[in-house]
Amino acid sequence: MISIEEMSTFCKKKGFVYRSSDIYGGYAGFFDYGPLGVELFNAIKSSWWKFFVHNHSNMVGIDASIISHPKTWEASGHLDSFGDLLLVCSKCKSKYRADHFIEEKLDVVADGMEADAVNKIILEKKLSCPLCKGKFNELKDFNLLFETSVGASKDSSSKAFLRGETAQGIFMDFKQIAETARVKLPFGIAQVGRCFRNEISPRDFLFRSREFHIGEFEFFIHPDETKCPELTKKHLSLKLNILDAKTQDNGKKDLKEMTIKEMLKKKMLDEWHAYWLAEQYNWLLSIGISSKSLKVREHVSNELSHYSSATLDIDYAFPFGSKELLGIANRGQYDLNQHIKHSKQKLELFDEESKKKVVPRVIEPTFGMERVFLAVLYEAYKDDKKRGNIVLKLDHSLTPIKLGILPLVNKNRGKAEAIFDKVKTEFVSFYDKAGSVGRRYARADEQGVPYCVTVDFDEGVTIRDRDSTKQIRISEDKLIPTLHKLLNQEVQFEKAGKLVK
Amino acid sequence: MISIEEMSTFCKKKGFVYRSSDIYGGYAGFFDYGPLGVELFNAIKSSWWKFFVHNHSNMVGIDASIISHPKTWEASGHLDSFGDLLLVCSKCKSKYRADHFIEEKLDVVADGMEADAVNKIILEKKLSCPLCKGKFNELKDFNLLFETSVGASKDSSSKAFLRGETAQGIFMDFKQIAETARVKLPFGIAQVGRCFRNEISPRDFLFRSREFHIGEFEFFIHPDETKCPELTKKHLSLKLNILDAKTQDNGKKDLKEMTIKEMLKKKMLDEWHAYWLAEQYNWLLSIGISSKSLKVREHVSNELSHYSSATLDIDYAFPFGSKELLGIANRGQYDLNQHIKHSKQKLELFDEESKKKVVPRVIEPTFGMERVFLAVLYEAYKDDKKRGNIVLKLDHSLTPIKLGILPLVNKNRGKAEAIFDKVKTEFVSFYDKAGSVGRRYARADEQGVPYCVTVDFDEGVTIRDRDSTKQIRISEDKLIPTLHKLLNQEVQFEKAGKLVK
Repeated sequence: MISIEEMSTFCKKKGFVYRSSDIYGGYAGFFDYGPLGVELFNAIKSSWWKFFVHNHSNMVGIDASIISHPKTWEASGHLDSFGDLLLVCSKCKSKYRADHFIEEKLDVVADGMEADAVNKIILEKKLSCPLCKGKFNELKDFNLLFETSVGASKDSSSKAFLRGETAQGIFMDFKQIAETARVKLPFGIAQVGRCFRNEISPRDFLFRSREFHIGEFEFFIHPDETKCPELTKKHLSLKLNILDAKTQDNGKKDLKEMTIKEMLKKKMLDEWHAYWLAEQYNWLLSIGISSKSLKVREHVSNELSHYSSATLDIDYAFPFGSKELLGIANRGQYDLNQHIKHSKQKLELFDEESKKKVVPRVIEPTFGMERVFLAVLYEAYKDDKKRGNIVLKLDHSLTPIKLGILPLVNKNRGKAEAIFDKVKTEFVSFYDKAGSVGRRYARADEQGVPYCVTVDFDEGVTIRDRDSTKQIRISEDKLIPTLHKLLNQEVQFEKAGKLVK
Repeated sequence: MISIEEMSTFCKKKGFVYRSSDIYGGYAGFFDYGPLGVELFNAIKSSWWKFFVHNHSNMVGIDASIISHPKTWEASGHLDSFGDLLLVCSKCKSKYRADHFIEEKLDVVADGMEADAVNKIILEKKLSCPLCKGKFNELKDFNLLFETSVGASKDSSSKAFLRGETAQGIFMDFKQIAETARVKLPFGIAQVGRCFRNEISPRDFLFRSREFHIGEFEFFIHPDETKCPELTKKHLSLKLNILDAKTQDNGKKDLKEMTIKEMLKKKMLDEWHAYWLAEQYNWLLSIGISSKSLKVREHVSNELSHYSSATLDIDYAFPFGSKELLGIANRGQYDLNQHIKHSKQKLELFDEESKKKVVPRVIEPTFGMERVFLAVLYEAYKDDKKRGNIVLKLDHSLTPIKLGILPLVNKNRGKAEAIFDKVKTEFVSFYDKAGSVGRRYARADEQGVPYCVTVDFDEGVTIRDRDSTKQIRISEDKLIPTLHKLLNQEVQFEKAGKLVK
């Protein structure tokens, strides 16, 4: 597995991701998606939307603004408790995020550690600034929300924030949606969008950046409802690698294989929590993430967010450790009650059965979309020593470019160009006449192009498969339907034409 | 044509667009897309991407960060000249955007008016604060960029801005893209994304908001190149309604019908400028905007942006006037030269022919995506007095929900539900059993659903057409292929089944 720095270099070289503002030396924590990256990221977002919104009839989508009324963040609790502890050197003024600093110095888990505990460790272990050996000042709370000012006056009344999560837009629109989209409990509201967190020390490429995308939905359930009718046998028998809270408390890190059914039995989650965990997991598998790279981890009590009574993460085996890819939190009635309190609005729904108004409880599956993007690349990246190049084995549905058209000899470019003109309106394609055919195959492999069509003097054309390097020959008139079948994986490659030996 | 306030009410009622933070009384200039809105907006953005990126082989896409290095906006000129003039009442401190204030008071065009001219008018016409009759203070420059602070220190070095346009991300990545995406001049880089402008007085619903989406591309051309090989006869013969700069200078507003060819002859634009203007226009027509609602307007000299030597707008006939929907500017070498100066980087490309390094010139087509969204709704919105409800005649490719399944009698719900289960994985569909069939049709019409399928005791099913209210009857097994053909407009409705008289 290549390091995250090597992945960053690969992404830059192939036009997947660049540093933002590279010509000005970059800007820490900000990135741009390049020509291949934007296509791959769009495909991942589309797949997510199709899976969770279009294919669940009790789900609708929204797209809320990044800047909203400042009361949003007062009500949500983010103004009070959405921060990290900041260590500042008294001498050189260097700044460190306290829990990360301790993790790196002492190789322990310190995520979410509280100020007292950090101070104790700093004193006990006599930790000082790694740059100048200066002593640290008292710890400071550092809020992660980016601040701005809205309107022509610039005073305390104009202060506003960039959203640190997409959830609040959903909670604020919840009542209007229930009234206009004709949904009934239980139902979900989904959103994918940019979020901003002023990380003290952004790191690990796209993994912890200051501007990133969250895909998440809030699933609203009657507060007394515990049953999930959508939970099928298939969900219940899904096997997951689990690291439960107890195991972690005991200092052990052994994984247990458990089914969703067993997790329910142990009361690690309720039925709806279980259902959506299984669906999150199923989506990851559907975009080509291997279950071997995944691990489900229960949050221990000191790392639970201020709004959650129970959280599970799905971690991915990144080269820098097994780290959170997705989370699923039980937010209960916390957020709606907070907004009811601060807005004085009745954010309740009428329940037909009990003839009472109820404040729903909420299960929240959250996806770090950049992290999914990275995981997809790690799964696809193969250094093929035999071919002497990287092969990006992206799923056909995600890969940015579906097809390359390569003329083999100069004199038949007319035929190749005519084929290119025909296929390019059907599939995202490129035409490549530069260099040896081996070089051109290598370039296509590194971009994840699943099929290349070579055109020579003879009748017919040759299709070459990225993953196996096998080739088949078919007549030109069958090219487009054959490619459709191959890309939709409706036919085995070897059986789609005459295999070239 | 309904007013913009009525459109806003309709959008809220149907779940297209809500005010942001509605439970806190809203937040001026910010909006949320609701369940139908997010689908329609995604469809418009996809159509744009397919038309301009996928179907032009000399175009690639990117998705740059919203926050970038602060030098970006120094180099681009936005820190100096991206502002409006602010009128402040000396008594009650009310604030007005000067040009809009004058336009409203005196019914003249004042867009881009300079400080001296505004001051003169204020004095001459003895204008005062409409709220308290107080005198105005001296005019102030007001910069539209939202400011924030990045990193753990909060001082002048940490100051950063939210992007006011998407173009700068493209200019900064231009060289990396040329090196990694294997494009050659002439080529374009496209982007759709959120932008932020701290408008003094946001107004007209989505038309002038503080957070909005721009779709734009920068098309890079050899500085000596004047010919556009892509310009076909079809482009040249395209007829546009033109309001040229001269006509406006003479105080006349008469429209002239001109072809692209005639505009070229009059040297109103160069060939590439003409080509992209025609393509912009063609895209609008492809998503159902009528050419009758469109007008092309040349910018007069005092409204040209600091970076442009020539700009044309495509205006749409909104109920509050004919207003800018798209623009196409000739940015020349301005931006690349500015970034070369500020970054000291060589943002040049090697030209094979002349064997010299060149700084390309740039044509920039820009789309106000919210404005396109509004125009699409205005074109589709029909108040059908005969039916007694609104019919939203959205293009099939854009409409959020493709299909409704309506059981006609309670006893055959099983059959209807089975049909719903089959169709819902193929098309975005809903199932509606509530109320009379007339009410259900009306609801579907207002959401723009092109086809409803009613299910009764008999064999077969009935499909009802939104636009004509005609009905056809077909056998159940032909439902899915027939719907595919209807939605792709491959067959006339009357000929797709047995017409019900």
